[in-house]
Amino acid sequence: MEFLNYYNRLRQAVEEELSQLIPEERPRTLYEPIRYILSGGGKRVRPVLTMMACEAVGGNPLHALHAGIAVEVLHNFTLVHDDIMDSANMRRNRPTVHKKWNDNSAILSGDCMMPLAYRILLKTSSLQRLPELISAFNTGVIEVCEGQAYDLEFAHELDITLDDYRVMIEKKTAKMLELAVVAGALVASAPEEHITALRQYAIAVGTGFQIQDDLLDAIANEEEFGKRIGGDIIEGKKTFLILSAQQKAVLPDDIALLEKFYNEQGLLPDDVPAMIDLFHRTGVIEATLCEVQRYMHEAHQALSALPDNAGKSMLAHFAEMLVQRTS
Amino acid sequence: MEFLNYYNRLRQAVEEELSQLIPEERPRTLYEPIRYILSGGGKRVRPVLTMMACEAVGGNPLHALHAGIAVEVLHNFTLVHDDIMDSANMRRNRPTVHKKWNDNSAILSGDCMMPLAYRILLKTSSLQRLPELISAFNTGVIEVCEGQAYDLEFAHELDITLDDYRVMIEKKTAKMLELAVVAGALVASAPEEHITALRQYAIAVGTGFQIQDDLLDAIANEEEFGKRIGGDIIEGKKTFLILSAQQKAVLPDDIALLEKFYNEQGLLPDDVPAMIDLFHRTGVIEATLCEVQRYMHEAHQALSALPDNAGKSMLAHFAEMLVQRTS
Repeated sequence: MEFLNYYNRLRQAVEEELSQLIPEERPRTLYEPIRYILSGGGKRVRPVLTMMACEAVGGNPLHALHAGIAVEVLHNFTLVHDDIMDSANMRRNRPTVHKKWNDNSAILSGDCMMPLAYRILLKTSSLQRLPELISAFNTGVIEVCEGQAYDLEFAHELDITLDDYRVMIEKKTAKMLELAVVAGALVASAPEEHITALRQYAIAVGTGFQIQDDLLDAIANEEEFGKRIGGDIIEGKKTFLILSAQQKAVLPDDIALLEKFYNEQGLLPDDVPAMIDLFHRTGVIEATLCEVQRYMHEAHQALSALPDNAGKSMLAHFAEMLVQRTS
Repeated sequence: MEFLNYYNRLRQAVEEELSQLIPEERPRTLYEPIRYILSGGGKRVRPVLTMMACEAVGGNPLHALHAGIAVEVLHNFTLVHDDIMDSANMRRNRPTVHKKWNDNSAILSGDCMMPLAYRILLKTSSLQRLPELISAFNTGVIEVCEGQAYDLEFAHELDITLDDYRVMIEKKTAKMLELAVVAGALVASAPEEHITALRQYAIAVGTGFQIQDDLLDAIANEEEFGKRIGGDIIEGKKTFLILSAQQKAVLPDDIALLEKFYNEQGLLPDDVPAMIDLFHRTGVIEATLCEVQRYMHEAHQALSALPDNAGKSMLAHFAEMLVQRTS
């Protein structure tokens, strides 16, 4: 498949460059965790997006390699710190940094990845628009922190609405994708209207991606998903599905189940099938599928402002890939 | 006194600008801790240094105000995270951020201060040397992280030498002062030789400052010091004094006391007078005073490469102020 070949070629370039970018050895408790998290694989969605965006506005995708890797390093910094805050034990089938080392090492290696990201960004050969690039990076990190703070605050609040939720995931998930495409466009010194189009594309893709993620927890095939479904329900996460269910449920039993979800004890594994049944009966699943489709439509619409070329066509494929994923 | 007036004028400019720079309100668990730590006062050593350095190379000190505040914000980010790692309860006579809020808020607000610092830096009006400025900021943060990682590693190691210690404090303390002066010099677009001189000055001042800090724990007047002396000894901190004592002690009782210090239990408050007596008898105090003087001499020597002007003279006064302090 043409798109997959293209994607894997860019991803391979990221892996090769990334594996050489941080040669420092000491202090070990700082650099070993950094190399560990950066070598953990993942789809490298953000740097590939940076390179595709660069090509879509007429640039050479490889010129945006360092800018893309800088975004990837920032993304991994947020993973290391989020895993401390969420007390997560595993990530990408390996122990999280704070589990393998300790909280202090995880705090410090996360901290160090931020200036490392900016340092990698400065390796970009064409830096005519450096102030805008740095500014985009600053805003990206600030908004991710805001998104994570909202996420933590929402865990203790009972009256979160779907709009609150959209603000939170836009900051926590979509803004890093926005940074990825803006960085690629700035490396190619794109005109403002193309940057705006790419921003809209990335926000739509990122928001749709997160909602799709929420959906998979309820409807995925467990084998392909690689874990039990209903994890979010047991964890008490206020996902798009739960917040929609709150709006749609009218039957006393459904309202009681949602109240139990919001109670301090929360739901048990045995409650999962009833909640998923509720999602289906009340139209939550259908509404969520619709919502994802709406964002995908927005993403494609945004692309129409860009000139036709290989980069643009890959961005369109990329949006499809994200919603068709099963894990 | 002329110097104090000058210092306080610059410090006042920092306070006024800093109090308006972060108007964001929400999410509260993110921005309240940031405003709290930034409003905690302190001597504002770093931004004042940035402005003095700018003036010393012929610039207008106020042009370096934002660059200086950016360094101050970075410094405060390191304080917030260091206090988590050190489990510190108090800072500047107030509860630390992670005590007043919680670890998650402290991690996240510290994280957010880094891009905020870079954002404030970009407010500088003359940005001809932006790549160098950003690069200096990156290196500054990376080295502070390395210094803190060494500090944490050294706590568990028994064979730390004075040279290891110098590397650690150069990274942990001196490099932020180096960043402060380099930032001021770059804003004024100083020639390379002046930047080099300022770097040497700042490294010497910063290292001397830290060793003086170690010394105060043993010889300060408790009333002026504001806390009991010997705190580092009870905490088991491997200060310049302890590491020197290891080299100098020969009497069996002295060696036994140092061994007790290195034991897992460490020393008790009752042991403090004996250790301070050891420091005096074995020449540790004298050697430490000498070391501080040596660094101050280096700092003054470095300044001789700069043209004579008010900024340079203030930098000389500043070095004196740091070693004459009693708290």
